Amino acid sequence: MNAPNPTIELLMRHRSIRKYTDQSVERSTLEQIVSAGQMASSSSHVQAYSVVAVKDPERKRKLAELCGGQAYVEECPVFLVWCADLHRLKDAADKYTPELESHEGLTENFIIATVDAALAAQNAAVAAESLGLGIVYIGGIRNRIAEVSELLELPELVYPVFGMCLGYPDQTPVVRPRLPLEAVLHIDRFDKEKADSHLDAYDDTMVQYISERTHGARDTAWTRLMADKITALSRPHMREYLYNRGFKME
Amino acid sequence: MNAPNPTIELLMRHRSIRKYTDQSVERSTLEQIVSAGQMASSSSHVQAYSVVAVKDPERKRKLAELCGGQAYVEECPVFLVWCADLHRLKDAADKYTPELESHEGLTENFIIATVDAALAAQNAAVAAESLGLGIVYIGGIRNRIAEVSELLELPELVYPVFGMCLGYPDQTPVVRPRLPLEAVLHIDRFDKEKADSHLDAYDDTMVQYISERTHGARDTAWTRLMADKITALSRPHMREYLYNRGFKME
Repeated sequence: MNAPNPTIELLMRHRSIRKYTDQSVERSTLEQIVSAGQMASSSSHVQAYSVVAVKDPERKRKLAELCGGQAYVEECPVFLVWCADLHRLKDAADKYTPELESHEGLTENFIIATVDAALAAQNAAVAAESLGLGIVYIGGIRNRIAEVSELLELPELVYPVFGMCLGYPDQTPVVRPRLPLEAVLHIDRFDKEKADSHLDAYDDTMVQYISERTHGARDTAWTRLMADKITALSRPHMREYLYNRGFKME
Repeated sequence: MNAPNPTIELLMRHRSIRKYTDQSVERSTLEQIVSAGQMASSSSHVQAYSVVAVKDPERKRKLAELCGGQAYVEECPVFLVWCADLHRLKDAADKYTPELESHEGLTENFIIATVDAALAAQNAAVAAESLGLGIVYIGGIRNRIAEVSELLELPELVYPVFGMCLGYPDQTPVVRPRLPLEAVLHIDRFDKEKADSHLDAYDDTMVQYISERTHGARDTAWTRLMADKITALSRPHMREYLYNRGFKME
């Protein structure tokens, strides 16, 4: 499918960038990227997110360690920490209606803040790439999330959803094949059987892709990797951490 | 700030569209939009989302009702329901390692699937707008989410995060002012006091914006609206609904 315009062309050639040139990111560039992030939709205009741009080398070094020793967190010129943020809403309730119970602990409000942060971040990622920068999302920010929160001095009702390295690319990775469209897109109703019938072909695609990229050292099917992923006890501290930050999941 | 390229210009002029022309959305256009969505980043390439494109008028009518009577859900030519989806991961575990416990109920995995859906949706939104279409996110899909799930025949471990109306715009709303950049962007550490010092100015901006749009009928400060928002008992059924769908928030 040929891209019909430069924006879709940009979206279709996205790949995560983990190696950066020495070029720093100007303050005006950072502001343009985050401003573009802010233009994403937000539930009832609550704008329930914030972002911490970490430039200080010592803080980046510490964050790289907390994210599981990912060198690119330290090496990128700017590391963005995208946070779901209900603190402005709670403060407003305390100011105007202290006599009323507020419901920041609802699962619904956790979803709103998490989605708001993700929509803004993805808009920012697109803006960054349109300016010739590269990004990679860092879920490892949730590995030792309580320590990250302390390091960045996050207040109550603010949690880091993910990090994002930002810098000028010093590599050109191959675009990774996505699931077949037919496995993801349903018409009028969810047709599990029909969608899942495309997974075998995707396993073949990914085996070939991984095998080529690792010169034959690895050739695991995608579905097999997914089995490993969901049977791993991944970040089991999240529930307690979130509860303690005010996201009670009521 | 002038936009330095057409993609950022596109992002900066985003507004939600709730009124559409009669022009239908071609199947190839829909596929281009969802394919662009798929190119967004995904945690460890799990691609934990699916999307149901609802075109059938009767289903759209029913969904409009379930979303709280929002006419544009019925009137848009295509209504996309973006779902967080862990069913492929769970099925893979059942296939390869039925003897192992799987952890689809972890809060961590709920976050991964919800964020994956949001990143894909936002990429799709940008792609749609680049093609001259307009969108509006519909959080109201969570109003009667169990009924929506039944209507769309969603399997276990799939939940609708939000809807998205898609169509060719028949209106040109004013762009809504966002929070000042300084209220959202922190450098190196979260500086709540400094960031929040910009909220009074934003209240003034929004009072003027709302007052102009409603010819003086409404002039509520943004922070006051936020107080109302967080003291409302919004969608308190979400926790139980999610638990029953397999998202146990462990």
